[in-house]
Amino acid sequence: MRLRLMEATVECLVELGWSGTSTTVVSQRAGVSRGAQLHHFPSKQALVVGAVEHLTERRRHAMADTVRTLPDVGRTRAVLDVLAEQFTSPVFFAALELWVAARTDPDLREAVAPLERRVGRETHAYALELLDVDEQRGRNRELVQATLDLLRGLGLAGTLTDDSRRRAAVLDAWAVTLDTGLER
Amino acid sequence: MRLRLMEATVECLVELGWSGTSTTVVSQRAGVSRGAQLHHFPSKQALVVGAVEHLTERRRHAMADTVRTLPDVGRTRAVLDVLAEQFTSPVFFAALELWVAARTDPDLREAVAPLERRVGRETHAYALELLDVDEQRGRNRELVQATLDLLRGLGLAGTLTDDSRRRAAVLDAWAVTLDTGLER
Repeated sequence: MRLRLMEATVECLVELGWSGTSTTVVSQRAGVSRGAQLHHFPSKQALVVGAVEHLTERRRHAMADTVRTLPDVGRTRAVLDVLAEQFTSPVFFAALELWVAARTDPDLREAVAPLERRVGRETHAYALELLDVDEQRGRNRELVQATLDLLRGLGLAGTLTDDSRRRAAVLDAWAVTLDTGLER
Repeated sequence: MRLRLMEATVECLVELGWSGTSTTVVSQRAGVSRGAQLHHFPSKQALVVGAVEHLTERRRHAMADTVRTLPDVGRTRAVLDVLAEQFTSPVFFAALELWVAARTDPDLREAVAPLERRVGRETHAYALELLDVDEQRGRNRELVQATLDLLRGLGLAGTLTDDSRRRAAVLDAWAVTLDTGLER
């Protein structure tokens, strides 16, 4: 029942945005009574932060399986596609709604900022692992950070229109940049 | 009076977000009667799109003056600071509110998407000019696009917490990458 509520929450954020998402709409969509919803998540904030956190983690577990399928040749470019998927997925759109709402809502920001830092650290560690580099060497740390910032910017650019062709060309060039700049 | 309304609109978007911004709140803040406001901007959508468009342009004109102050040594890094300012300014936050609201509002998206494309093209041309490169050569085009996507991602990362130290380190590394990768 918790899971159904969290999945319905992310669906609502993706389709209706922050202001269109309410605990009532989520309960209806999940087919869960108001009483049960309030028992699991006493407020919109608890529901939304819990949902984004949970689904971000589930997504990362699913992606961990893809590591084994990475090719030896063209690995960097393949890694960029795996990472880019995180920033063009429904969970990214849901997190974006939460993030932007938190900017002007101090209570929500207090709940979202630690989640964002934790997800940021984990994604950074995951990117290091996929790219198979030591962040202590050369400019590796900053290049991996730049990669994630780039992907976040591309994710934002892809919210209004289909930006996939341009994104692919940018990531082609970025893969060359990484293979040149990363110290292995 | 138009200008006062547009400036008040951007202030409201920055402080109160999309859902907290209404034509009533903007009129009050601008000290303009409802009738006059409706005469200049018949809807919230017209007001908000007009305001973000106008202030984006004004900002760009202001920045054009900075081109003359760029140093010869360390020019690339200085250019990144000039561009980064665009993505950490109040106008960026206002545009972000508009952009995210437009994702789930088809009418608003129809008004915002052309504005976004135009601003994107102009910013790209401006970046080429500042970096003083020909986009037909090598991977220049993609590297400049990546630069703007990176800055957009850094801008988004800076909305919840003060991210300026990390941003400076990422841009230091990126300046080295650009000086290596751009064909001049």
